[in-house]
Amino acid sequence: MPYRKLRHEQMRIAMIGLGRMGANIARRLMRGGHEIVAYDRNPPLVAMLAGEGATPAASLEEVAATLEGPRIFWVMLPAGPPTESTIETLMGLASPGDIIIDGGNSFYKDDIRRAKLCAMKGLHYVDVGTSGGVWGLDRGYCMMIGGDAATLVSLDPLFEALAPGFGTIARTPDRGDPNEDARAEKGYIHTGPAGSGHFVKMVHNGIEYGLMQAYAEGFDILKGKSSAKLPEDERFDLNLTDIAEVWRRGSVISSWLLDLTATALAKDQMLEQFSGQVADSGEGHWTIEAAMEEAVPAYVLSAALFARYRSRVDTTFGDKLLSAMRFGFGGHVEMPQ
Amino acid sequence: MPYRKLRHEQMRIAMIGLGRMGANIARRLMRGGHEIVAYDRNPPLVAMLAGEGATPAASLEEVAATLEGPRIFWVMLPAGPPTESTIETLMGLASPGDIIIDGGNSFYKDDIRRAKLCAMKGLHYVDVGTSGGVWGLDRGYCMMIGGDAATLVSLDPLFEALAPGFGTIARTPDRGDPNEDARAEKGYIHTGPAGSGHFVKMVHNGIEYGLMQAYAEGFDILKGKSSAKLPEDERFDLNLTDIAEVWRRGSVISSWLLDLTATALAKDQMLEQFSGQVADSGEGHWTIEAAMEEAVPAYVLSAALFARYRSRVDTTFGDKLLSAMRFGFGGHVEMPQ
Amino acid sequence: MPYRKLRHEQMRIAMIGLGRMGANIARRLMRGGHEIVAYDRNPPLVAMLAGEGATPAASLEEVAATLEGPRIFWVMLPAGPPTESTIETLMGLASPGDIIIDGGNSFYKDDIRRAKLCAMKGLHYVDVGTSGGVWGLDRGYCMMIGGDAATLVSLDPLFEALAPGFGTIARTPDRGDPNEDARAEKGYIHTGPAGSGHFVKMVHNGIEYGLMQAYAEGFDILKGKSSAKLPEDERFDLNLTDIAEVWRRGSVISSWLLDLTATALAKDQMLEQFSGQVADSGEGHWTIEAAMEEAVPAYVLSAALFARYRSRVDTTFGDKLLSAMRFGFGGHVEMPQ
Amino acid sequence: MPYRKLRHEQMRIAMIGLGRMGANIARRLMRGGHEIVAYDRNPPLVAMLAGEGATPAASLEEVAATLEGPRIFWVMLPAGPPTESTIETLMGLASPGDIIIDGGNSFYKDDIRRAKLCAMKGLHYVDVGTSGGVWGLDRGYCMMIGGDAATLVSLDPLFEALAPGFGTIARTPDRGDPNEDARAEKGYIHTGPAGSGHFVKMVHNGIEYGLMQAYAEGFDILKGKSSAKLPEDERFDLNLTDIAEVWRRGSVISSWLLDLTATALAKDQMLEQFSGQVADSGEGHWTIEAAMEEAVPAYVLSAALFARYRSRVDTTFGDKLLSAMRFGFGGHVEMPQ
Repeated sequence: MPYRKLRHEQMRIAMIGLGRMGANIARRLMRGGHEIVAYDRNPPLVAMLAGEGATPAASLEEVAATLEGPRIFWVMLPAGPPTESTIETLMGLASPGDIIIDGGNSFYKDDIRRAKLCAMKGLHYVDVGTSGGVWGLDRGYCMMIGGDAATLVSLDPLFEALAPGFGTIARTPDRGDPNEDARAEKGYIHTGPAGSGHFVKMVHNGIEYGLMQAYAEGFDILKGKSSAKLPEDERFDLNLTDIAEVWRRGSVISSWLLDLTATALAKDQMLEQFSGQVADSGEGHWTIEAAMEEAVPAYVLSAALFARYRSRVDTTFGDKLLSAMRFGFGGHVEMPQ
Repeated sequence: MPYRKLRHEQMRIAMIGLGRMGANIARRLMRGGHEIVAYDRNPPLVAMLAGEGATPAASLEEVAATLEGPRIFWVMLPAGPPTESTIETLMGLASPGDIIIDGGNSFYKDDIRRAKLCAMKGLHYVDVGTSGGVWGLDRGYCMMIGGDAATLVSLDPLFEALAPGFGTIARTPDRGDPNEDARAEKGYIHTGPAGSGHFVKMVHNGIEYGLMQAYAEGFDILKGKSSAKLPEDERFDLNLTDIAEVWRRGSVISSWLLDLTATALAKDQMLEQFSGQVADSGEGHWTIEAAMEEAVPAYVLSAALFARYRSRVDTTFGDKLLSAMRFGFGGHVEMPQ
Repeated sequence: MPYRKLRHEQMRIAMIGLGRMGANIARRLMRGGHEIVAYDRNPPLVAMLAGEGATPAASLEEVAATLEGPRIFWVMLPAGPPTESTIETLMGLASPGDIIIDGGNSFYKDDIRRAKLCAMKGLHYVDVGTSGGVWGLDRGYCMMIGGDAATLVSLDPLFEALAPGFGTIARTPDRGDPNEDARAEKGYIHTGPAGSGHFVKMVHNGIEYGLMQAYAEGFDILKGKSSAKLPEDERFDLNLTDIAEVWRRGSVISSWLLDLTATALAKDQMLEQFSGQVADSGEGHWTIEAAMEEAVPAYVLSAALFARYRSRVDTTFGDKLLSAMRFGFGGHVEMPQ
Repeated sequence: MPYRKLRHEQMRIAMIGLGRMGANIARRLMRGGHEIVAYDRNPPLVAMLAGEGATPAASLEEVAATLEGPRIFWVMLPAGPPTESTIETLMGLASPGDIIIDGGNSFYKDDIRRAKLCAMKGLHYVDVGTSGGVWGLDRGYCMMIGGDAATLVSLDPLFEALAPGFGTIARTPDRGDPNEDARAEKGYIHTGPAGSGHFVKMVHNGIEYGLMQAYAEGFDILKGKSSAKLPEDERFDLNLTDIAEVWRRGSVISSWLLDLTATALAKDQMLEQFSGQVADSGEGHWTIEAAMEEAVPAYVLSAALFARYRSRVDTTFGDKLLSAMRFGFGGHVEMPQ
């Protein structure tokens, strides 16, 4: 069911969860002319959005009562128990034909399960994987969306308002055929049945980890080139800030992550404010699980994940065991450096 | 010695090696108003450039005789013996104050060595690492340049003509200070002494391998999600073309390599024209050597290189050995699938 | 509850599943003086064991009726549905105090779940991870056993019969203290509560993959040293058979897997009978999952698993994508070699 | 030239370099009935060996004067300049037919070069890769030896004295044919021309790194299973000491390195005396270089090397860059934990 025609109709939806992501998505929807019923368990957040034009709601029950059918509930909460329990409650409050959207970072198998439960009650379940971070309010959100096709069509005006749109990014050669789904060029796609949206977003994040680690290792090698351990005529004291900048301009490895790198290095080439203890969220882990279920080699994506684990500990027990084995066969005593 | 002022003076240089890269660099220099003395050991290539306005030369001797001092020789030949022997010959033909530019993909330690030999004869040696591939003629070349600062200043008009210039790429926050070297924002930098240009370009390519492999693994996982080995309700038949397209638009992983991916997939989602036997050039290998010399972990960059090696063989002896061990302890007989 | 005293009492247990592993375990138990009630859904296997002295049973019901309480059921079936459904049936047939042993390769979380169900019925659940492969009948089985301590003590005569015993393997320095659990030196241990036996065996297999891949890569490098692509005076045509043999004798990397390698290479240095398409069972995959749950870096164990995945396909889609990107930026056309 | 017959003739050789390895090799040769001329630039070491029966020498010149032709010089010094300069001096002192043995850990390409220089002077060059560490004096040394075949035959009585001999290690099936070189079963082999001995030893060490890291990661996963971050019923507090011990006895992953692991854990399960900052010598690095020269994937061996690099730093610049990028797109502020 290719989507072609723009519909600029005004819609009304509930935004449940008004953290940074939820609040900004609500704002961008309002900018696009849509009405928001705003709810969060933290009342000041509701008040804030109300001050920006949203209709406040004090409970999920009030959310449900405020909307007319078919109701659209956009849940924007941390994956896991918060999302799970909220959707469970909404399933009790919803009527056949209503739409529940999980816009968070849920594990896609949870979507598959919940979509089945929803279908049994005549509800439509839609999962939206969203990329764009804190920049999305202004740049627009890149969205990967799972659910049934007809439901997606009914939601197009919302996604259109949220997406970046065609903008200034050049058309890919061989695209633009009238028979193809035009959504992709606007910055959102229908990925397939429920769960597929979060699945594609999950792999997006897996790739993101890999890209980031590739840059990290490369800059490590650049920085290490000034090491006093190298022969004197093979040392270079490189200007990492300028290197990141020049690579943005015409090189094969230009990217948005490189833009961010250039920004960080322009501010402080030593990156001294950063701890280097790097968090990971579920997606990197789930991507490797998916690779293993499919028997697909994922050397780079897994290595990128492991580098984050390693960044958060000083010494592993395994490292001590290596020292112990070396002592065992060679009598090597390894001293802290 | 920060570079600030634009000089639009016309220069005259020899381009030695008129393969795809050399010819296009010569063309872009001529477009920029510079004069080219063109030489290649393959006369038709010389004739072709002469037809586009270059002064032909039939030998390196003729090249040297045609230029006036200080002569500028740009060598654009395959790394290794072709570059080495040509530079050796030029060192014999050159006079003090002349400049030899190695614009190819030489190993940076060869640059260091050759720059010392040149210095003993009063010659200036400059190494230019160039990124941009076949797109450089129109987009401009991103250049990382090693050599002494004064020589670089004398060559600025050339690099300015070759580089992409500031163009439409947004300024990085915190940049644009009048005391910083403005070259980076034009798309070329002075990286440091001779060898450092090729070193930075080498790491650029190492990163490139890592980025490419991250995308490759991610798309592999997307494609594998339709496998009949998965539970039926966990299979998705994903549209990779649309996914690549949507990620170009507002996602965290947008990049030029992703643009190329989207182009390839838009043409043929199955990529059937490609063998999947992936070549590697020296830079990936040298990047890992550099990492090892510095004791920097390079899990991702090395894995990306190894994936290319693996892509070029059907079965490794190591795989057979795994089968043999499994047979040894478990009696497993592994059959071709 | 340290185990000290040997009890040579004769026991009677049911062996359910008479495949290669189950039949051999039954045989080794009978050699140790124990009585076996033998059952398999494949009657000829039952007949075979009956011919060797076991009491045949035609159904699980008959198994239950033949044993006296507390009954001991040793289930030795493929992990997943076969084991799951059999244990479910046995839980229905068993009486409080009976013991169900899962000796297969179950996922440890299934053990945890099943042990809870058993406990609710007053049954004892024991999981036995077994290493030793086809050699166990004669060498004895190395066993990692989860379950409650008292149940383990009641089963010691069985495990003692199955384990290799102290044998000729030298005592580890600092061991042999009378207060320590002596089981480890006999070749079996109580690892902790239900599930822990299979967990430890799972990690054992994860390590096994890593060890195997380390040898595989090393021998690949030895073999590749004769490549015509190398400079002639840096090529060696190495005798891999002799190398494997000599490493068995006094080298740091001697191991049982190396013994198997030497055996395979002594038979055929080319390993021509082996396809090199290497299977993997669940344990390698589960080990990486466990590592991710614990945020432990597992570079080597995951790479070893991925090498097996890669060994089973000719070309990955990811490899084609790399070719496509290279074509995109460099115009490289990669041909099959 | 298969070696069959044992010759128990007494030989006389110079041992140059009396560090732990050199002194023990000298001692084992003396135990085997051979005579040692002992030299070290550190006189007390010479005196020590003289006290054990060696003939002392105060300089390389005196070493050369003390031996009769054909002289045999065994150089046992750190790889690099110490070995290089000593061999250079010996080449000046030696006469045609003399033999120079490099028993250290030289890079095999240095052997190839030096062997050519020796050949030009009529000298024989032999490189001996030695495994066995501090245990070799009593267990015997496993040796991989490069050089010309006739020279090797002349040295057999020495290698026979140093090697472990057939001992108690079982014969590999299909071995023992009278036409095969019997040396392998005694614990030393002729690997091929000069350089091949150190090449095979280098790969041995590369494998060693991989094996060690496989155990390290496995034990890390075992240890991490008690983490409070896991669900309570999925935590196990495992006895690593007993696990290492039981794996020595009948498991697929038994090995000498596991014996050492069991020893270390039996002494202190926490391994508290070890820093976990793990050194690496040249061989791991050179093995990866060799793999890259041959285009052989070496995922595991390289990862094992990188883990050692990583163990020696607290935080990498690359980790900080990851934090910086995360801050850039998500506003994440990563705090030290």
